[in-house]
Amino acid sequence: MLQGGASLQFSMVPMNLLTPGSAADYIDTGSWAEKAIKEARRVGTVHVTGSTKADHYARIPAQAELELTPGAAYVHMTSNNTIEGTQWNVLPDAGSVPLVSDASSDIFSRPIDIARHGLIYAGAQKNLGPAGVTLVIIREDLLARSADTLHTMLNYSTHVKNDSLYNTPNTFGIYLLGLTMKWLRSQGGLSGIHVINERKAATLYAEIDRTGFYRGTSQKDSRSRMNVTFRLPSEDLEKAFVREAAASGFDGLKGHRLVGGDAGIHL
Amino acid sequence: MLQGGASLQFSMVPMNLLTPGSAADYIDTGSWAEKAIKEARRVGTVHVTGSTKADHYARIPAQAELELTPGAAYVHMTSNNTIEGTQWNVLPDAGSVPLVSDASSDIFSRPIDIARHGLIYAGAQKNLGPAGVTLVIIREDLLARSADTLHTMLNYSTHVKNDSLYNTPNTFGIYLLGLTMKWLRSQGGLSGIHVINERKAATLYAEIDRTGFYRGTSQKDSRSRMNVTFRLPSEDLEKAFVREAAASGFDGLKGHRLVGGDAGIHL
Repeated sequence: MLQGGASLQFSMVPMNLLTPGSAADYIDTGSWAEKAIKEARRVGTVHVTGSTKADHYARIPAQAELELTPGAAYVHMTSNNTIEGTQWNVLPDAGSVPLVSDASSDIFSRPIDIARHGLIYAGAQKNLGPAGVTLVIIREDLLARSADTLHTMLNYSTHVKNDSLYNTPNTFGIYLLGLTMKWLRSQGGLSGIHVINERKAATLYAEIDRTGFYRGTSQKDSRSRMNVTFRLPSEDLEKAFVREAAASGFDGLKGHRLVGGDAGIHL
Repeated sequence: MLQGGASLQFSMVPMNLLTPGSAADYIDTGSWAEKAIKEARRVGTVHVTGSTKADHYARIPAQAELELTPGAAYVHMTSNNTIEGTQWNVLPDAGSVPLVSDASSDIFSRPIDIARHGLIYAGAQKNLGPAGVTLVIIREDLLARSADTLHTMLNYSTHVKNDSLYNTPNTFGIYLLGLTMKWLRSQGGLSGIHVINERKAATLYAEIDRTGFYRGTSQKDSRSRMNVTFRLPSEDLEKAFVREAAASGFDGLKGHRLVGGDAGIHL
């Protein structure tokens, strides 16, 4: 349990894992991946692979597009792309290279194949608890990469050795996160919540596909179960939709602030 | 408002302010100063000055002991030393060099001469609100020192430009901090709470000085109004004191965990 959000992990991941002389592969599936790439480049060599930017990030790249670097330090992916409404429905095959996943926006929404990851990080505020806590799960052998020259608070080993209590943590946030975990268990754990999330997403996408009136912004095989994004036939209709939704108690449905008013609707 | 506690500021201060080719002066008054020095040395040249380590940190150094470096990047001090029970009762004179103060353990306990500081940082969990929020006050012209090569989350300019909202902050912690600030105002603000704190500390120190039974661990002119530390004639009596205090509802009076059982009593 750390602080600083996923944004600080964009830096801590390469600081700890991108050892001198090696390179890291970053799969570019959206705005958050771009931010992660920007920070990693401050640390070392980054290969951007499988970018779907040319397709407005409307899809997750196929395995064949990835061209992963043999012997890379790690492969970085963004599990779910909040703004673009896409999600990895099958994990990429990184071979023996550790897979690092920014799972901020879909962590614990479905079962996770932990064994296939080298590191998972997630800001708490979407699926885990209140803002101000970040979950990091790291494969124990990768801790050996964290150099002693790293700043104490930016070194994963510090937090592992001290059971996340090197400094005073966000105690209240962690307490609330614990309550959320208990609630998740009461829902049948990750497989239980997965069924619920699939049902919710299927209901929305079925309506989007039924009439042709709504237009999903992500390709069907890349659709996110967490963030359902779509457009209406005109911007005026989108404004009316957001207004009427707000009047019914559904607030903040306009696209993410980073993409301004062009994002259509965002559930 | 940042996250990561004062411990992350031990790194961010030199990362941002200790520009290449310059040196920083660190006044060594205790365990927290030592930690700050350790991180600053990862960034650049550090001159440790005015150390009272030889006196078991039982006092704040006099101005004449400081031997500050002309043209230093900044002078770093620890406003109050929790573990050692000492506090700066008069700010050191740093001349035209910016004074950087770790005020984690006495922030807003008394009026602050903001104009004499270049930067003040304070973890929230002692005097401001719940753990997980860190207050940083920086003089605007010092922001020019933050290099573009710094990691985004570790660059003070990022947080200033974005009104502390570059990433999702610890919203609940900041809300509670706001409530504490309103309460502080209702107490007459910083001068009001100062009177209360002086009265509380004076009551305790008067009792310590009255009988000779208790022995204050810090020199009188360096005594902290925040942390009153003292010993009893024997370790057995100290154990009995802690036990009886706990039975009366005063918990956690044993010295700070960093110094184990040797710290005597800590109010």
